[in-house]
Amino acid sequence: MDLDTLTDEVLAQCDLLGGISEEPGRLTRTFLRPPAKVVQNHLAEWMTAAGLHVRIDSVGNVIGRAESPISRPGVFVVGSHVDTVPDAGKYDGILGVLLGIATAKALRGRRFTHALDVVAFSEEEGVRFRTPYIGSRAVCGTLSAELLARRDADGLTVSDAIRAFGLGLDSVQAAAYPPGTVVGYFEAHIEQGPVLEARGLSLGVVPAIMGQTRAWVRFVGQAGHAGTQPMDIRKDALAAAAEFITTVERMGQSTAGLRATVGSLTVSPNATNVVAGEVRLSLDVRHAGDTVRRQAVEQLFAKAHAIGSGRGIRVEIEPGLEQSAVACDSVLLSRLADVLRSEGHSPEWVVSGAGHDAVIMADIAPVAMLFLRSPGGISHHPDESVRREDVRVALGVMVRFVANEVGVA
Amino acid sequence: MDLDTLTDEVLAQCDLLGGISEEPGRLTRTFLRPPAKVVQNHLAEWMTAAGLHVRIDSVGNVIGRAESPISRPGVFVVGSHVDTVPDAGKYDGILGVLLGIATAKALRGRRFTHALDVVAFSEEEGVRFRTPYIGSRAVCGTLSAELLARRDADGLTVSDAIRAFGLGLDSVQAAAYPPGTVVGYFEAHIEQGPVLEARGLSLGVVPAIMGQTRAWVRFVGQAGHAGTQPMDIRKDALAAAAEFITTVERMGQSTAGLRATVGSLTVSPNATNVVAGEVRLSLDVRHAGDTVRRQAVEQLFAKAHAIGSGRGIRVEIEPGLEQSAVACDSVLLSRLADVLRSEGHSPEWVVSGAGHDAVIMADIAPVAMLFLRSPGGISHHPDESVRREDVRVALGVMVRFVANEVGVA
Repeated sequence: MDLDTLTDEVLAQCDLLGGISEEPGRLTRTFLRPPAKVVQNHLAEWMTAAGLHVRIDSVGNVIGRAESPISRPGVFVVGSHVDTVPDAGKYDGILGVLLGIATAKALRGRRFTHALDVVAFSEEEGVRFRTPYIGSRAVCGTLSAELLARRDADGLTVSDAIRAFGLGLDSVQAAAYPPGTVVGYFEAHIEQGPVLEARGLSLGVVPAIMGQTRAWVRFVGQAGHAGTQPMDIRKDALAAAAEFITTVERMGQSTAGLRATVGSLTVSPNATNVVAGEVRLSLDVRHAGDTVRRQAVEQLFAKAHAIGSGRGIRVEIEPGLEQSAVACDSVLLSRLADVLRSEGHSPEWVVSGAGHDAVIMADIAPVAMLFLRSPGGISHHPDESVRREDVRVALGVMVRFVANEVGVA
Repeated sequence: MDLDTLTDEVLAQCDLLGGISEEPGRLTRTFLRPPAKVVQNHLAEWMTAAGLHVRIDSVGNVIGRAESPISRPGVFVVGSHVDTVPDAGKYDGILGVLLGIATAKALRGRRFTHALDVVAFSEEEGVRFRTPYIGSRAVCGTLSAELLARRDADGLTVSDAIRAFGLGLDSVQAAAYPPGTVVGYFEAHIEQGPVLEARGLSLGVVPAIMGQTRAWVRFVGQAGHAGTQPMDIRKDALAAAAEFITTVERMGQSTAGLRATVGSLTVSPNATNVVAGEVRLSLDVRHAGDTVRRQAVEQLFAKAHAIGSGRGIRVEIEPGLEQSAVACDSVLLSRLADVLRSEGHSPEWVVSGAGHDAVIMADIAPVAMLFLRSPGGISHHPDESVRREDVRVALGVMVRFVANEVGVA
C-alpha cells in the first residue's frame, strides 16, 4: 500500500473518529465514557488490518504489536492518545495513533529486530479526573493508589470507571512494561501552536517538552462602594491583580523561551459599583529549562507579595502542578533529523509548550517527538486542522524512522 | 417626648423593620414585594402616632402630612426610601424615613407656616426592575411609560407590580406634587463611606451628589494555548484589560475628587492553560463636577482604544448610565450648616458618591442632605451600622432645621 493511500486512510479515520462523541453536536471524548468503546473497536480492527496483534490493557489502552520474529528483546513504542478535551478538534492525539497504525501497515510483512507496539493511550487530557496521563502512567507502572481513588464530577473513582467499563482492575499493575524492555518511544502530534506555520515548515523535531508550574494566586482586599469610597483608602483586589497580570506578561516577554500566562480570573463580588474585595487568578509558567522556570516563578510570587504589601492586600498562593521539563533523547533525535534530511526536509527544532504522553514515557525509555504544522496554530477547538501534504510527509518520515528503530531487515 | 426617647424609638424601629424581608435569614426588601405591605402598615401606624395624616400613593410611597393650619401654600418634604439591596443592612434609606417621622413627632402640635410631608419612598435601589428611583420619580411626575413597561426577572412589568399590590395604576400621574408646591426637600442618610469616621465626625453636610458614567468595555483578542503560543504573537485580552485597569486606577488617584472603578470583569474562556480570548469589564466613573467626569471618561475610552491598537485587540465600548451631578441648594445648606453650628457641630462637607432620592427631588425643589457616620464605611451589607450618639445628634439637628423650614411658630 503506497503512502498516499495510507495518508488518505489516516485522514478518513480522523474524520470517522471525530464523529464519535459523548456530546451531541461537538466532539468530546473523555476517559472510559461509552464512546471510548466504539473507538477501541475501530482501532482494534484497523490494527488487525495492519498486521498487529491487539490487546486492551486494564486502563483501556489499545496496544497493537508486531512481534520480532528473531525474538531479540525490547520493543519500540509508537503512540499517542485517543481522548479529547470538550469541544475538541479531530487531530489532537488521535492523528499520532493513526499514523502509528499506518506506519505498521506500511512495514507489514517486514522482519524486525525489535518488536513494535502501536499504543493508543486511553487518557492524556486530564478532563474527566482533572489529572492527565492515566494511559501512559499505566504502561509505565506509575499509576498511584491516590490517582486510582480520584473522583470525577459524578463521584466515581478511576477504579470505579475501570470496573464499569468492564476492564480488570486487578491487572492494573500488569499493564506496565517490564523495566528495561522499551528501547524507545516515538510520538507524532500536531504542534498546537503557530511556530511551524510561521516558518513555512511541515514538520518540526521536538528537542524538549517544557516544564510547567501552575498556581492559584488570591488577592484578598476589601469590598467597598465604588461611589462612596475615596481612591486613597481602597483595597481594590482587582487593581492589585491587574498590576500582577501586567508583571506576568512583562516577565514572559523579557525572558527568552518563557511562557507566562494568567488565563483564568474570578472577581468577588463582581458588581459594577463595588470595589472588588477578592480576586483569584491562575498562573501558568513554562520553559524548556527548569532553572529559568523556577526563577521566574519565584520572582513572580515575590512580586505578588510586594504588590499586596504595597496595597494592604493579603496575597495567598496555592501551589498547583509542578512538572519538570523533559528532554527528548539526543541519539533518537539525531536519527530522526537524519531521516528528515534524507526525505528532503530541514530538521528544525520546536520546543513543545504543551504536555504529551512522551513526558511520562521518558521515565522508562528514550523518547522522540515529531510535530506536524497546525494551521492557524489552532488546537483544542473544532477548527483544529492539518494539511494533507504535512500528514503525507510525516508518514514518510515515520515509516523510515520506525523501520530504522525496530531494525527492519 | 424627649430626643433620647425618640432616638431609642428610631433604632428599635430599624431593628424591627430589619427583620421584614422577602428572603429567609437575610434582609432583602425590593419594590412592592409582599414584605413592603408589612412595612407600609408599620410606617402608617408610626406616622399616625406622630400626628401625621397618612396616604399611600399609586407606587406605594407612604406619605405622612402635617398640614399647615394657616394654609400658606407649599410643603417641605423630608424623605428617604424603604427598599433595600439583597442581603442589606438595616439603616440604608429607612433610617432617614424614621428620623423624619421622629422629627414630626417632636414637632407635633406646633403651628407650621408650610405643610410638612414625611415620605417613605417605595423604591430607590433599582434592584427589582434594574432601574432606580421609582418612588421619587412618581412624586416628581417623571415616571415614564417606558419605565412602567420595564420587566422584572419574572416578566412582570412595573405596572403589573403596581396592580398586583392593589394600587391604583390610573392615578400614577396623580402622585406627582403640583409644580411649584415643594418648597424644599431634606434627606438624612448614612454616609455609606469612610470619610466621616476618618475625620471623627458624627454628621456631614452634603454639598453635591456626584454624577456618574457607567460603561462596559470589551477587549476581543484571540484565545490561544498557554504552552504553545509564544508571547510575542499573543492577543491576550486579559493582559490588555489589566493594562486598562491600572490606567483607570491611576486616573482615579491622580484626579482630585474622582472615583474610577472597574468592579466587574469576566474572562472567556477563563481556563488556566488558555490565553484569554475575550474580556468584558465594567467602568464606573464619578465626580461632583460633570466636566471633570466627562473628560476623565473620554481619556479612559481613548486609552482603552490605544491599548487595543497597540496589541491588535479589538475594543468595544457599550455606554451605560450617564447621570449628571446634582448640587444641593446653597441656601438650604447654609441654614443646615447654621443649625449644626448652633448644636455645637462643625458643618463639614462630604460629597455623596452614591445616588439618593435627592437626585430626583432636585428636579422639583431645592434639596439638602445630611450624612450620618457609617462605622467602618460599611453599607449594603448586614454589618452596616450606626452609632446611637450620631442618630441622637442627627435627630436634634433635624428637629431644629425642619422647624425652621416649615416655619414653626
